[in-house]
Amino acid sequence: MRVSQLFAPTLRETPAEAEVISHQLMLRAGFIRKAAGGIYSYLPLAWRVLKKIETIVREEMDAKGGQELAMPVIQPAEMWQETGRWSVYGDEMFRLKDRHNRNFCLGPTHEEMITTLVRGDVRSYRQLPLMLYQIQNKYRDEIRPRFGLMRGREFIMKDLYSFDRDEAGLDESYNKMYDAYTKIFTRCGLTFRAVEADSGAIGGSGSHEFMVIAESGEAAIVYCGDCDYAANVEKAELHPITGQVEERLPLSETDTPGTKSIAALCQFLDICPEKTIKTLAYRTDTGAIVLALVRGDHEVNEIKLLNKVGCLRLDMANEEALAGIMGSCAGYIGPVGFDGRDDIIIVADATVMNMVNAVCGANKLDKHYINVNPGYDFTPDIIADIRLIQENDPCPRCGAPVKTARGIEVGQIFKLFTKYSTSLQATYIDDDGKEKPMVMGCYGVGVSRTMAAAIEQNYDQNGIIWPAPIAPYHAVIVPVSSKDEAQMALAEKVYGDLNANGVEAVLDDRNERPGVKFKDADLIGYPLRITIGPKAINDNLIEIKVRRTGETLYFSSADYLSKVKELLAKL
Amino acid sequence: MRVSQLFAPTLRETPAEAEVISHQLMLRAGFIRKAAGGIYSYLPLAWRVLKKIETIVREEMDAKGGQELAMPVIQPAEMWQETGRWSVYGDEMFRLKDRHNRNFCLGPTHEEMITTLVRGDVRSYRQLPLMLYQIQNKYRDEIRPRFGLMRGREFIMKDLYSFDRDEAGLDESYNKMYDAYTKIFTRCGLTFRAVEADSGAIGGSGSHEFMVIAESGEAAIVYCGDCDYAANVEKAELHPITGQVEERLPLSETDTPGTKSIAALCQFLDICPEKTIKTLAYRTDTGAIVLALVRGDHEVNEIKLLNKVGCLRLDMANEEALAGIMGSCAGYIGPVGFDGRDDIIIVADATVMNMVNAVCGANKLDKHYINVNPGYDFTPDIIADIRLIQENDPCPRCGAPVKTARGIEVGQIFKLFTKYSTSLQATYIDDDGKEKPMVMGCYGVGVSRTMAAAIEQNYDQNGIIWPAPIAPYHAVIVPVSSKDEAQMALAEKVYGDLNANGVEAVLDDRNERPGVKFKDADLIGYPLRITIGPKAINDNLIEIKVRRTGETLYFSSADYLSKVKELLAKL
Repeated sequence: MRVSQLFAPTLRETPAEAEVISHQLMLRAGFIRKAAGGIYSYLPLAWRVLKKIETIVREEMDAKGGQELAMPVIQPAEMWQETGRWSVYGDEMFRLKDRHNRNFCLGPTHEEMITTLVRGDVRSYRQLPLMLYQIQNKYRDEIRPRFGLMRGREFIMKDLYSFDRDEAGLDESYNKMYDAYTKIFTRCGLTFRAVEADSGAIGGSGSHEFMVIAESGEAAIVYCGDCDYAANVEKAELHPITGQVEERLPLSETDTPGTKSIAALCQFLDICPEKTIKTLAYRTDTGAIVLALVRGDHEVNEIKLLNKVGCLRLDMANEEALAGIMGSCAGYIGPVGFDGRDDIIIVADATVMNMVNAVCGANKLDKHYINVNPGYDFTPDIIADIRLIQENDPCPRCGAPVKTARGIEVGQIFKLFTKYSTSLQATYIDDDGKEKPMVMGCYGVGVSRTMAAAIEQNYDQNGIIWPAPIAPYHAVIVPVSSKDEAQMALAEKVYGDLNANGVEAVLDDRNERPGVKFKDADLIGYPLRITIGPKAINDNLIEIKVRRTGETLYFSSADYLSKVKELLAKL
Repeated sequence: MRVSQLFAPTLRETPAEAEVISHQLMLRAGFIRKAAGGIYSYLPLAWRVLKKIETIVREEMDAKGGQELAMPVIQPAEMWQETGRWSVYGDEMFRLKDRHNRNFCLGPTHEEMITTLVRGDVRSYRQLPLMLYQIQNKYRDEIRPRFGLMRGREFIMKDLYSFDRDEAGLDESYNKMYDAYTKIFTRCGLTFRAVEADSGAIGGSGSHEFMVIAESGEAAIVYCGDCDYAANVEKAELHPITGQVEERLPLSETDTPGTKSIAALCQFLDICPEKTIKTLAYRTDTGAIVLALVRGDHEVNEIKLLNKVGCLRLDMANEEALAGIMGSCAGYIGPVGFDGRDDIIIVADATVMNMVNAVCGANKLDKHYINVNPGYDFTPDIIADIRLIQENDPCPRCGAPVKTARGIEVGQIFKLFTKYSTSLQATYIDDDGKEKPMVMGCYGVGVSRTMAAAIEQNYDQNGIIWPAPIAPYHAVIVPVSSKDEAQMALAEKVYGDLNANGVEAVLDDRNERPGVKFKDADLIGYPLRITIGPKAINDNLIEIKVRRTGETLYFSSADYLSKVKELLAKL
């Protein structure tokens, strides 16, 4: 493809509506254009990237025995009413009526459709296991579509559904998909982690999310550098940390003027945060006060806390509510003296219970208790793991220090068990002659989201840096002057040679200054830029600039082709 | 793929709802399943066929410089309101509202979307010409979806749009697409014709339809065996046929009892139909009577007649209406004596004007005129080409006898000129500095319809007969007994060898009687069936049955592989 003909309209300015980097760069580099909120056209460069991701996904699905098919985008309401999800989905589902006033939706997912399809044609255990998948547009009417392709209303997904005789079969299918997903994101050239996840609204239990690591990621994750443990921060389980062995001293009150924060308190008393108990006050939906206790250097995991207390909602208690129950002592609250009360629930992190001679608020302005001994000076209502995991916490599996990162969810695998096969009567006759519900799993890859996530992970101030396996083209050939006949002739030769040898190259034949062509090359993010200038003509040296590292290499025209291939294999 | 694992559920019975052969066979052979009226799931075998058609289409679009992209399925109403088509489309358009009550439709076509997209990013003549295409679901809410994939509500189309500076550029783009379409349907292994067509509701003028020839086709077409002329029967132009040179004789009336039909008249008078004038009476929407005259062996083309008369509607005049104006003489009407009247329009086919001493009705029961000489004994109001072309009529281009056939429209190419670029202000600055509207064309291939049309053209009483280039698999290997170890071992070896050599083969490893396996093989329509039975084991002979011809061939295991490839190249 010659750049003069390529429909890749680049923009000088960053459009104001784009908040995240992938959205900004895809607009600027001519990859996408908006048709309506959360609805985009994919221009030719984006479409090439998407096709490459699709091909990788398809090959890995086929390798595990997946069979590709295509189900309708437009789905009749009846099957959604059978599972009850017609009402559950609410406004997030695009709904429409046909000319005969029948109800349809645009599929946000296809569990109902595939289960209905399979129940009609699978009757015997001999037809199982079965893995069926499609790559297709999905629809979700987001209340506030934003972040470009990261949260759109029309997006491309691969969804595979597995049907097995029993849970052992489901485990096998699940493990195959775990392995396939690992291969997919590895082949895409992305840094990612598979993390343990909640299974959320889709139902079932047993789930992993595949997260592309990127600073802009919506999800905070932890992972172990030594073993393969990884989890959502909210989900990560923690063992209590044991404190130093020390003789317990009697509780006493001390003056601590102006020490509302842990930092101020530690400075005033000349102690480390590990010696302090942090007390946070919440209010439940039923009006009770929850005092959550964690060590001074730890943070409360509000999702864990909510689950342990067993309430529907938790909000930080405001000073007013607090004053009514505990007196006015904001910044100086603590658990001592409040245990055993009906209107106050004390929840202590397990690590707090291992602390000896700690410091905590005394529920009076400018006063703290010292030598507080949990279990002696106060008794919590609940002792549990309620803290957020932190960088360098011991890995719950192997004990090595964990690392934290932010991630973008690009894939998720779920065990559905018999949730849909039961509600939709998808049964089979087993070899014992009995009718049993099929045991199902579902497995999604956000294809268009993976493209956006790849950019969130791979860019610099000049533009996108594509991993070679999913780059729209591998290389751009830039003649410094397209009016120089010798340069153009060599550029054409290189262009022909590269494409004939499986290197996808474009030729920037536009009559533009080299600076303009270099800027566009960086913005679009071709892994290699091959510059044909006077050096190439006079010294027989082909200049290759590596987009990711910025390094410039020179090769003779005799061996540049093999060098290009070597470089690409590493990018 | 092993057939025991393949999701291709075949049916013994033909489902009652399926009216046409492609619908029946795709249901029976496990290619499609219905989700709602006109909405289908494509099962794995169908999906493989569709992917092959898509690949052929994509390669030919790319070869002409087309760039693939993907536009949204869900489209905002505003752009459709700009062109006025939001109201024109009526109930055929699927419409929906999002949660913010904004109007959207599911794209039946993408002229509005692509024109809006291109107008935003193309400003200069240097960016033209441009050919952009996509392969995607399209939506049409048919009032009575039927015939399976032939007239569905969700279907797969390739649509390309060309943008040029001027009409000369459009001609070039149009010719490229004409050539590409010819290559596409040739590569698919289909017998087809490109016919001149009206451009219909989509607008513009200058159009060809690509028709797959099949007895079940909705459209009647004519084509020349000598030159490449082909047209819709309704559209085919005809030169008048000259009669024999003969001396004109005076008009006279003769008794012709019981001769209401041309056949009876010819038998009674012992003349050939070429000597008679057939008179058909129509009534226009304004109440006038139209007498249409064609030679006795010809038929009236009512579309041509309607256009020549210039009325909105034409219906056959009933006897009552006729009696009021012309008297009671049904079966004996003729033009003589009715010329010059305000309430009767006489339209004569040009061939009629070349007749000498003809026979026509005398407007009295059981009476005809003989020696009628058009232009002398009556004067028509309009002389024009109003007859239907017939088998063996001279080709309007070269004069050779034409053939007739029925066709299924699988592609159409259109010149849109500036219809959409004007209404949507898609302009560019030309090299003379002037702002001009882009000159557009649009070009569609019905991808899912092509699959159905391929079956309508290629089947027998046992099932589908796939052309090899779009067959889901090239060959099925059938061990006669899957319990025979020697047969299974050889079958596995053949299976491995074929797939390793680019022949897509499935292995029917099911524990079924050979008759069941043969029946399924014929129904699904694999081009080749390779049977591994005692002959293969004992005599080292591999049996290959050709699905299309039914012939059975035997090859030694040493050279069957090259023979398979040779056979496939011809299928």
